[in-house]
Amino acid sequence: MSRNELEQLAETLLSVIRKRSGQPHDIRKLSASLKATNTDIASAAGVLADWEYRIKKRKSSITFVSAPDSLIDTEIRHGLKTRIIGKSMVCYQSVQSTNDIAAELAGRGAEHGAIVTADQQTKGRGRLGRTWYSPPGTGIYVSVLLRPRFTPDRAPGLAIMTAVALADAISEYLPGEVQIKWPNDVWINGRKTAGILTELSAEQGRIHYVVIGVGINVNQGVGNFPEDIRPIATSLRRALKRKVRRVDLLHTFLLNLEKAYAAYEKSGLKSMHRKVRAYSALIGEEITVRTGRHETRGRAVDIDLDGRLILEVEGRREAVTAGEVTVVRTKSS
Amino acid sequence: MSRNELEQLAETLLSVIRKRSGQPHDIRKLSASLKATNTDIASAAGVLADWEYRIKKRKSSITFVSAPDSLIDTEIRHGLKTRIIGKSMVCYQSVQSTNDIAAELAGRGAEHGAIVTADQQTKGRGRLGRTWYSPPGTGIYVSVLLRPRFTPDRAPGLAIMTAVALADAISEYLPGEVQIKWPNDVWINGRKTAGILTELSAEQGRIHYVVIGVGINVNQGVGNFPEDIRPIATSLRRALKRKVRRVDLLHTFLLNLEKAYAAYEKSGLKSMHRKVRAYSALIGEEITVRTGRHETRGRAVDIDLDGRLILEVEGRREAVTAGEVTVVRTKSS
Repeated sequence: MSRNELEQLAETLLSVIRKRSGQPHDIRKLSASLKATNTDIASAAGVLADWEYRIKKRKSSITFVSAPDSLIDTEIRHGLKTRIIGKSMVCYQSVQSTNDIAAELAGRGAEHGAIVTADQQTKGRGRLGRTWYSPPGTGIYVSVLLRPRFTPDRAPGLAIMTAVALADAISEYLPGEVQIKWPNDVWINGRKTAGILTELSAEQGRIHYVVIGVGINVNQGVGNFPEDIRPIATSLRRALKRKVRRVDLLHTFLLNLEKAYAAYEKSGLKSMHRKVRAYSALIGEEITVRTGRHETRGRAVDIDLDGRLILEVEGRREAVTAGEVTVVRTKSS
Repeated sequence: MSRNELEQLAETLLSVIRKRSGQPHDIRKLSASLKATNTDIASAAGVLADWEYRIKKRKSSITFVSAPDSLIDTEIRHGLKTRIIGKSMVCYQSVQSTNDIAAELAGRGAEHGAIVTADQQTKGRGRLGRTWYSPPGTGIYVSVLLRPRFTPDRAPGLAIMTAVALADAISEYLPGEVQIKWPNDVWINGRKTAGILTELSAEQGRIHYVVIGVGINVNQGVGNFPEDIRPIATSLRRALKRKVRRVDLLHTFLLNLEKAYAAYEKSGLKSMHRKVRAYSALIGEEITVRTGRHETRGRAVDIDLDGRLILEVEGRREAVTAGEVTVVRTKSS
């Protein structure tokens, strides 16, 4: 049996035994139903152990104990309820940047909804050429390839749409504690937990593709963050005081994203506009927004249907498309 | 002398002898001033002949007769008056698509203003995934890489800006006969002479790069066009009844583009808005605009400062960002 065949058998075996977690399966019965020898079944169970599944192997039986929290194809597929996003996926142990790989795949014709995940990024990118710290085994790094049929002028709202999908997913663990920092970060208790980098390839009037990249700090402990970002970064684990299964959070996020995108295609941010406002960390705050060399100071009063931040500057309203926001004074201070 | 050294010597020789076109240069004097043997000078003259320069070679003298109309580095550099656009250039005999190569170079860090030219494209691309017919020896296929510091929402006007630079260049040969068909074609006598494909790579609030690709039908005769586009396409040569030196037209276009871009950076289409209107083939016409599955019919009344086409539809004004325009009825009909 080739390695490839053995891995296929391992996947089939897994799908059978994980249905009755904790209960022993008779090896002879498994051999019969999966049309394999006892030795092959035993080898396949060995493969599952290599993949960090916990399996109890006895002389005549195999018992599924638990699945690893690994961002691997098999685990991500198991329980993923989306219909389009993640239908095609490529899962890496370690890459420079999932967004770069997704863009490459797009260039080679990858389909709408394809995703790229990684357990670690060695050159994880944030907005404006910054790095996104992406250590192994603790975060989620995922890029989603979309091929919108709408025109490029509707692309800018996709970052906020994604932020809502992400904030909703994290809120299932931490209800009421999640905020969106316009335009592309998600905060827990005022600290950065997740970031979004939306990249667009387009021509006049037509989008070639969009890559939505997301980095989520899930199970990082304080020691996992480099000193310079320690005061401003946090993770779900730090806020919850327990670990979160990354695969579960990824499932929720991808399903939210698929629904949000369907709504966005239809009517932009309209249906999620109430949430955009409710999650906003900035509305009501005195802030400065820096765009290139230009800096504006004012009070953030709204986010509009195009995802622009609305500032009140000396009685006038100004819409800001993008920029670096600093909160000058919080409401409570 | 290596091939590389010989080519360098040929370029130096060329720069010396072309200064006094038609006049013989003494080979011994050339040898002395260029620090090379007589044999090397003769070989260098042979290289120039390979490059299709017309050179008269006598026993003791070399005379420059004329330069080829080739889109090669040396010819494009000679007489190019730009300061930024074309400072870095890559010139190909034949490529699939100059836009694809420019995007590749951009990914590898090529600088603002770099250009890619080709004598022929085997997969020349037009808007909306269409092909742009790009036969050898007759057209100009050039892509310009820009790295604007303005935000992506200002990118859409670049196509119209380029169309103006192009229409100005062609008008030097055919004053009063050139029109812009919004958003990205240039017409002579109602027939397509040049097309523009602007491609954008961007993230939220920041442009990574823009590639402006231009294809110009210069010296095509009727027989050079495939039958299906013969009724709708034309070339400068067909309109002028004589050939045009492609390199000269390219120089004019690139210089116009550099000036137009400097103006655009400062104030968008403002300074060229009068020209945008004057060149427009659509203003005043009854047209339909198709965007995806949506079709609008109305009278084109203006192009605004964002490069959008303004339609009058049953008394109301509508702005169109992009789309496929068909003229329903011309003013004269």
